[in-house]
Amino acid sequence: SDGRVEITSGDGATSLRLRGLVQADYRWFDSANEPADTFLLRRARLVFEGKFNNIFSYVVQPEFAGTIQILDANVNVAVSPAFNVRIGKFKTPVGLEQLQSDPVAFFNERSVATNLTPNRDVGIQLQGDVLNKTLNYTVALLNGVPDGGNNVTGSADFDSDKTVAARLFATPFVNQKDSLFTGLGVGLAVSLGDYATASGRTGGYRTDGQQTFFSYDASVVANGQGVTWSPQGYYYRGPLGILAEYVASSIELQRGALPVREVENFGYNLSVGYVLTGEDSTYRGVTPKTVFNPSAGTWGAFEVVARVSGLDVDDSVFSGGAAGRFAAPNVSASKLTAYGLGLNWYLSRSVRAGFNLYQNKFDLAPDAVPAANALIADDETAFITRLQISF
Amino acid sequence: SDGRVEITSGDGATSLRLRGLVQADYRWFDSANEPADTFLLRRARLVFEGKFNNIFSYVVQPEFAGTIQILDANVNVAVSPAFNVRIGKFKTPVGLEQLQSDPVAFFNERSVATNLTPNRDVGIQLQGDVLNKTLNYTVALLNGVPDGGNNVTGSADFDSDKTVAARLFATPFVNQKDSLFTGLGVGLAVSLGDYATASGRTGGYRTDGQQTFFSYDASVVANGQGVTWSPQGYYYRGPLGILAEYVASSIELQRGALPVREVENFGYNLSVGYVLTGEDSTYRGVTPKTVFNPSAGTWGAFEVVARVSGLDVDDSVFSGGAAGRFAAPNVSASKLTAYGLGLNWYLSRSVRAGFNLYQNKFDLAPDAVPAANALIADDETAFITRLQISF
Amino acid sequence: SDGRVEITSGDGATSLRLRGLVQADYRWFDSANEPADTFLLRRARLVFEGKFNNIFSYVVQPEFAGTIQILDANVNVAVSPAFNVRIGKFKTPVGLEQLQSDPVAFFNERSVATNLTPNRDVGIQLQGDVLNKTLNYTVALLNGVPDGGNNVTGSADFDSDKTVAARLFATPFVNQKDSLFTGLGVGLAVSLGDYATASGRTGGYRTDGQQTFFSYDASVVANGQGVTWSPQGYYYRGPLGILAEYVASSIELQRGALPVREVENFGYNLSVGYVLTGEDSTYRGVTPKTVFNPSAGTWGAFEVVARVSGLDVDDSVFSGGAAGRFAAPNVSASKLTAYGLGLNWYLSRSVRAGFNLYQNKFDLAPDAVPAANALIADDETAFITRLQISF
Repeated sequence: SDGRVEITSGDGATSLRLRGLVQADYRWFDSANEPADTFLLRRARLVFEGKFNNIFSYVVQPEFAGTIQILDANVNVAVSPAFNVRIGKFKTPVGLEQLQSDPVAFFNERSVATNLTPNRDVGIQLQGDVLNKTLNYTVALLNGVPDGGNNVTGSADFDSDKTVAARLFATPFVNQKDSLFTGLGVGLAVSLGDYATASGRTGGYRTDGQQTFFSYDASVVANGQGVTWSPQGYYYRGPLGILAEYVASSIELQRGALPVREVENFGYNLSVGYVLTGEDSTYRGVTPKTVFNPSAGTWGAFEVVARVSGLDVDDSVFSGGAAGRFAAPNVSASKLTAYGLGLNWYLSRSVRAGFNLYQNKFDLAPDAVPAANALIADDETAFITRLQISF
Repeated sequence: SDGRVEITSGDGATSLRLRGLVQADYRWFDSANEPADTFLLRRARLVFEGKFNNIFSYVVQPEFAGTIQILDANVNVAVSPAFNVRIGKFKTPVGLEQLQSDPVAFFNERSVATNLTPNRDVGIQLQGDVLNKTLNYTVALLNGVPDGGNNVTGSADFDSDKTVAARLFATPFVNQKDSLFTGLGVGLAVSLGDYATASGRTGGYRTDGQQTFFSYDASVVANGQGVTWSPQGYYYRGPLGILAEYVASSIELQRGALPVREVENFGYNLSVGYVLTGEDSTYRGVTPKTVFNPSAGTWGAFEVVARVSGLDVDDSVFSGGAAGRFAAPNVSASKLTAYGLGLNWYLSRSVRAGFNLYQNKFDLAPDAVPAANALIADDETAFITRLQISF
Repeated sequence: SDGRVEITSGDGATSLRLRGLVQADYRWFDSANEPADTFLLRRARLVFEGKFNNIFSYVVQPEFAGTIQILDANVNVAVSPAFNVRIGKFKTPVGLEQLQSDPVAFFNERSVATNLTPNRDVGIQLQGDVLNKTLNYTVALLNGVPDGGNNVTGSADFDSDKTVAARLFATPFVNQKDSLFTGLGVGLAVSLGDYATASGRTGGYRTDGQQTFFSYDASVVANGQGVTWSPQGYYYRGPLGILAEYVASSIELQRGALPVREVENFGYNLSVGYVLTGEDSTYRGVTPKTVFNPSAGTWGAFEVVARVSGLDVDDSVFSGGAAGRFAAPNVSASKLTAYGLGLNWYLSRSVRAGFNLYQNKFDLAPDAVPAANALIADDETAFITRLQISF
C-alpha cells in the first residue's frame, strides 16, 4: 500500500519489490559567494529488491539524477540470521548517518560529519544479528574509498591493498518493550586500509549547503595508511529521536616529492527530532497516523528537527608554505561549525516535505585572507526545501 | 492488455504501471551534404508511473538511447481535480506539439516549430481542469531552459532568476458529444525569464531530418529577457485530425563586449492526419480496431499525414560583420520551410510503423554563399522510417 | 519462482518479465605487469521482456556497471514461427559464444576467440526455425561494428554502407529424444561489410584476464571490406557439454597515406564442461536439482570446466617499420594461447559462484623486445572468482 508494490509468491518465499525515490528541491542562498538559488532534482532512483528460497536476496538500485550511476548492486546469501554473506556494491559499514536510508534522515542533507565516512564500495561483507538480536556485527573487505567517497562505477582498484571495515552496533534493551531504553543503540565502527594516488584522498568536504569549503591541493596524493573510526549511537522514545556520531579520519598524504605527513580530521553530529503529532520516531523513519487529504480534514504528521555538527581539519595541512602545504588557506577553511533547524511534513508514509535552514560558520587558518568570492569569506546561510516521494 | 502492465490494489486507489518505449529507425538522406544513411536507436525508455491514496502520483522516466538521462521525475499532489501541484522535472507547459506524447504524434519527428519551445525543466507547477473540464490551466516556475532546450541532468541554475511559464487551453465543446466541435481545442501559452551565459541561448535549430541548419556563434551569450509565446489549437473529428501552432521566441543576446541586441524568431506548424481505416484520430493517438495478424487476415489501421512547418530567424542575426554578427550566413540559414508526408501503420495499439518523407527548403541571408559541404547548400530530402513499441 | 517474476494475463497471450543480472568479482593477477588485485562489479543489468497478442515482443536491457548503456532495445514481430522480424539494437548473429547468454557460459569471461566476433549493433533481422525446428536461420542488416565491437549508444553510422550478417545453425537430431546426437548443433556464420575510420577497426584484443594484449596504432584506420566467418558447434549429452568455434576475421586497413593492406586474424575456442552432480548441461545453462540450504543439507550443483582458446594476429601487422607498421611489437603480441580451468557452483537456478584459473601465453613478433611493464613481457596468470545472480 501507499505506493509500494510487492509481488509475492503464495508461500512468501519469493518476492520482488519495485521501489523508487524522487527528491525535488528548491534552494536559497543568502550571499554572493554562494551559488544561485535554484530548483534541483536531487535524487531520482529506482530500486529492484528481491528474495527467493528465503536464503537469497538482491538489490539493484540505479541513480538517474546528477551523475547517473549504479548505487547498490549486490547479492546476499542468508546462511542463517546470524550469518549473511553480501557480495557486490553496497555502503561501507562505518557511519551511522551514512548507513541510514536517506529519505528517513532528520534533515534533507546529511551532516558535515558524514564527509569523513566512506560511502559505497565494492567488496564482500559478513553480517548478522546475534545475542537474541541485541548485537549486530558487520565485517567487510573492500577496494577502499576515501572520506565521503563512492566507487561510482563499481570499478577496479588502483592497488592490490584492500580496506577492512568493521562495525559493532548494540541495542541491548530492544527485547524489553517497556523499557526506557528500548530504542537505545550504541556502536563503534572502524575502517583501515592503504591508499595511494589522488583517488585515495577525499575529493573535498562540503557544507550543509553542499558547497565545497575544504579541498586538498591537486598535487596532494594519498601515500600510506588511512584509518577512520567512529563511536555512534541513537535513542528513540515515542516522538523523540536523537542521533549522535563522532568520526576521526587520518590519512598519510604527500605533496610531490616532499615527505609523507599524516593528517587527522575530526567530525561530530548531534541531531534531534520531535514528532509534533505524536507518532513514533525511529531510525527507519516516521509513519504518519493520517494522510494529507484536505477534503477529509487530515493533514499527516509534523516533526521539528535540530542539529549541530562540525568538521575540524588538521591545522598542519596549511603549513609548509605555498609550495609545500596540503591546502590553500584562502579558499579552504580550517574548521566548520554547522547549525540546522528544520520542519518535516509527512503527507503520507511515502511523501515528505522538508524545510531546512542551515547556518554554517567557518574558522580560517591563522592569518588567512579569503580570496575574493571564496565561499569561506562569509558564513553560509542556506534554506533547502524538498518534496520527496519514497515509494 | 496489449503489452501494458498495471498492478492495482483492490480499491484502485493504488497502482503502479510499468511502461516503455522503443523506437528504431532507418534514415535515408539524398545528398552528400547530409549525414550517412543509418539505422538508429532513437528512443529507449522505461516509465514507472504510480499513484496512491487517489491523491499522490509520480513518474520516473529514464531515457537509455543517445544521451542517457532522466526525462521525467516528479511528484504530483492532486489536492482536487482543479488544483494539482507538481514538483520535480517535467515538460515546460508551452508547446502544443512538445506537450503531446511523442509516440502518438502524427510524424516520427516533431515539426521545426518545436525548435522554439522549451522542453523539460525542473521546477514547480500548478495545473487543473476547471469550468466543467472545458478549460485547463497550467502555471509553472522553473529554472529556465532556452528554445528547444532540456535540463538534461535536472541540475542547478546558472543564476537566481527563474522562468515563469503559463498555458490556458480550452476545449469548450468537450461535453457536447454530438457537436461538430467536440474535438476542438484552442490555447495560448507563454514563458518569460531572464537568461545568461551560452546555456541561456538555443543550442541550434534542426531540420525535420534532425540536422542543425542554424546556430549562433559560440561567443554569443544570452544576456537579458527571453519571451516565448504560442497560440495553438487542434481539431479532431472522426478519422480526421488537425494540429496547428505558432511560436514567437525573443531573446536578448550579446557577442563579446558589443551591445546587447534583441532577436526574435518565429515558427509555425500545420499538421493533418486522416485514418484510412476509419478509426478515430485523437490528441492521444489512434487505437486500431484490428491487430496485425496475417493468419487471421487482419492488418491493423492505416493513417496518412501531411505537414507544412517553418522557422524564420531574425534577419538581424547576420548583421554586424564577421566580428559582430550573431551567426555565420555561410553555414546557418535565415529561414526554413519544411514539407512532410507520411503513412502510419498501427499494427496494434502499442506497435506503430511510420514512413515519413521530408523536404526542407532553406532561404539564405542576402548575398550568403554556403560553405562547401554545408547542410544549407542544398535542400534537404530525408526519408525516415520507424518501428516503435509503446507499451 | 527462484527470483524470476512474470506477470501474465489469463490467456497467456500477454506477459511482462522483470529480470536482472548482478555479477560481482574478485580478481587476482600474479605479476607486476598485470593490474592490481581487485573487487569489481562486472555486470548490473535489468531486463524488461514482454510479449502480447502472441505476435509482438520486446526487450529493453540497460547495463549499469562500467559504461552505463542500453544493451538490447528491440521489437520482434512473429509473423510465424518460421518468420520473425526484429528491429532495434541486438546481438549481431555471428559468434556462437557471443550469442550465448553470458550468465550461463562455462566460464566467467568469454574466450579470446570472441574478440573476433561483432557484438551488439542496430539494424533489422529476419530469423526463424524451419524444417521441423532442426534449422535456425538468421539474416541481419546492420550499421556494422568491428571485431568485438558494440554500438554502445545505438547511434548513427559513419557511412551509408551497411553490414550483412547471416547464420545457419542446425540441430538435426533435436526431435529424436533418445539419439546420441539429440544435443548436437553445428552452424556457419558470416558477416560482410565496408568499414572506414578508426571506428571501423577493433579497439583491441583482450586476454582471459581482460587486459589488452594487442591493439592497432592509433593512426591506423579501416578503409575497405571486412569479412568475418565462423564455423561453430556444440554437443550436450547428460552432464557433458562441449562448445567449439573457429573465427576468421579480415579487414582492409590503412595507416596515414600509405597503401591499404588486408589483415586476417584467426581465433578458436574449445570448451568442455561436466556437471559433477549429474544435472544436464545445456546451451541455456544448468538447473541444479537442489538449492544451497545448509540447514536442509543440500548444496546445489557443481560443474568442472576446461577451455583452450587462441588468437593469432596476422604477422604482417608488424611489418613496415616504425612509421608504417599497423601495430607496435613491443606492446602488442603476435599470438595468444589461453588455457582455462574452472569450477562452477550452482547455489540455485539463479545464483552461481564461478572460480576460474586462466593461464595466457604470448608469442611475440620475431625479434620483438617487450617494453618495460608491458603486459606481454610475461605470461598472464589470473584467478577470477565471481558470485552472480541472474533472476
